[in-house]
Amino acid sequence: MAASDVLVVAGTHGNELNAPWLLQQWNRQPDLINSAGLSIQRLVGNPQAQAAMRRYVDRDLNRSFRPDLLEQSGGDLEVCRARELVGRFGPKGDAPCSVVLDLHSTTAAMGSSLVLYGRRPADLALAALVQGALGLPIYLHESDSAQTGFLVERWPCGLVVEVGPVPQGVLEARIVRQTRIAVEVCLEVLAAVRLGVMRPPRQVVVHRHLGSCDVPRGESDQPHALIHQRLQGRDWVPLKPLDAIFQAADGTTVETPQIEHPSIPVFINEAAYAEKHIAFSLTQREVWAMEPQWLQQLGALLK
Amino acid sequence: MAASDVLVVAGTHGNELNAPWLLQQWNRQPDLINSAGLSIQRLVGNPQAQAAMRRYVDRDLNRSFRPDLLEQSGGDLEVCRARELVGRFGPKGDAPCSVVLDLHSTTAAMGSSLVLYGRRPADLALAALVQGALGLPIYLHESDSAQTGFLVERWPCGLVVEVGPVPQGVLEARIVRQTRIAVEVCLEVLAAVRLGVMRPPRQVVVHRHLGSCDVPRGESDQPHALIHQRLQGRDWVPLKPLDAIFQAADGTTVETPQIEHPSIPVFINEAAYAEKHIAFSLTQREVWAMEPQWLQQLGALLK
Repeated sequence: MAASDVLVVAGTHGNELNAPWLLQQWNRQPDLINSAGLSIQRLVGNPQAQAAMRRYVDRDLNRSFRPDLLEQSGGDLEVCRARELVGRFGPKGDAPCSVVLDLHSTTAAMGSSLVLYGRRPADLALAALVQGALGLPIYLHESDSAQTGFLVERWPCGLVVEVGPVPQGVLEARIVRQTRIAVEVCLEVLAAVRLGVMRPPRQVVVHRHLGSCDVPRGESDQPHALIHQRLQGRDWVPLKPLDAIFQAADGTTVETPQIEHPSIPVFINEAAYAEKHIAFSLTQREVWAMEPQWLQQLGALLK
Repeated sequence: MAASDVLVVAGTHGNELNAPWLLQQWNRQPDLINSAGLSIQRLVGNPQAQAAMRRYVDRDLNRSFRPDLLEQSGGDLEVCRARELVGRFGPKGDAPCSVVLDLHSTTAAMGSSLVLYGRRPADLALAALVQGALGLPIYLHESDSAQTGFLVERWPCGLVVEVGPVPQGVLEARIVRQTRIAVEVCLEVLAAVRLGVMRPPRQVVVHRHLGSCDVPRGESDQPHALIHQRLQGRDWVPLKPLDAIFQAADGTTVETPQIEHPSIPVFINEAAYAEKHIAFSLTQREVWAMEPQWLQQLGALLK
């Protein structure tokens, strides 16, 4: 198979239905999303988890792209799948793709957003350009040793598109629409970069990951309190010093953990993160000047 | 074990977390919900499905209380569990309970609501009194041969409390609070009926089940369209003749199915009903005069 410009992955988590449905409809109706002249590979990340309507079968596929796991042989279903995907579509694969878009949904009220893993220049260029075109917030995930092995890290350039809130296992027209728009704008931007007609924005606003908080837990690891109802749904809204964070079953506010201000919470009450003991993550908003070499590096990938 | 007044069941579906968490906290803190002097049994309906964080293991527990299944021996995990629950807490059980409250949550925007199965006088009395105290809407499920075997049907009186929207697998303070309030009012009402101090309301408003609609499907049973984004979240709101019902992936409205007006949709886009091919159910709003014998029959159960 020939090389392609973009790999679009949906259903990396088997219980996130909206992006896989969008890809299926895109297959039926090729003009559903304008490819802007780019060559595109589309696939479902974890079809076996999707068939079981679960996030994953053995382990989270989107934590299975760790070099140490990929270099071994055998392993869990998801490690084998990660190896297969890198072997087919990775930079040294049979059908290499230059850029990957990994489409997710969340139960948190993240709206349409982009997630970056680390500070790779080409990723920053693409995210900054999409932010310039569509205004999406960017969550920069880095320096978190408990969360590693993300799919996009194995491609020269890659973003996660994260849309919510939507329950697991539910198809929602609004979520499909937001995902479709985000994908289309990513493709438009990439095509314009290839043509050399893209004017870079002066700056990019990132929400840099600081750490994560869990709910208070008691015996047998059971939560003693929940995300406060006034915090629920307030992703991207800066926390103020006296904001309530957790509440007990009788509605009383539980003593607030020490949080540096003005931190900005994201992924508040994402269903899949409960097992990872993450009730929300905290970020810091930073405005970075755009560096010329970012766009050059992205352009070089699309030559 | 002695007889009890009320059996409170949570987690009949293993991926509905809020009511089981409320019961757990009620165990830790007995004054969390005022029992109003009633004797109460509390239990998790399907602990094995809960451990697996799935709706059920073999089959839906809340469709497994069919007399024909209960009379056989052996069977699926949920049929055995149904038999066990009826054997322990049913009218002829070791620890019989007069009234059952079965606490559910839904991904649909049902708010706090009550579900009745058929027109049993004691159920109607309890639902009418709770509606009078708290204003909750009542969904009367009947005459649906595709959906049978509900838990509450095996007790002399029983209601489902249904609260949403909340994703499966997510604990949300607002949902816990609404569930707590609904349970407490049910118990207050039952205690007042026992004491004979309850003045019945003159009427009860029910939303009587008419039937269910599925999304349009194509090859391999895949949906070709979704609940329209203007219908999503509009549970309990009467449909008007030109309202859009479904939309395709490109956002266009799909031709509307024939729906009698003014029908009122409920359980719009409930995650668990997709496998049952139910995108929403339709109801008709009816105002019924309260019959004196309803309250007498409920009172007789609490003697």
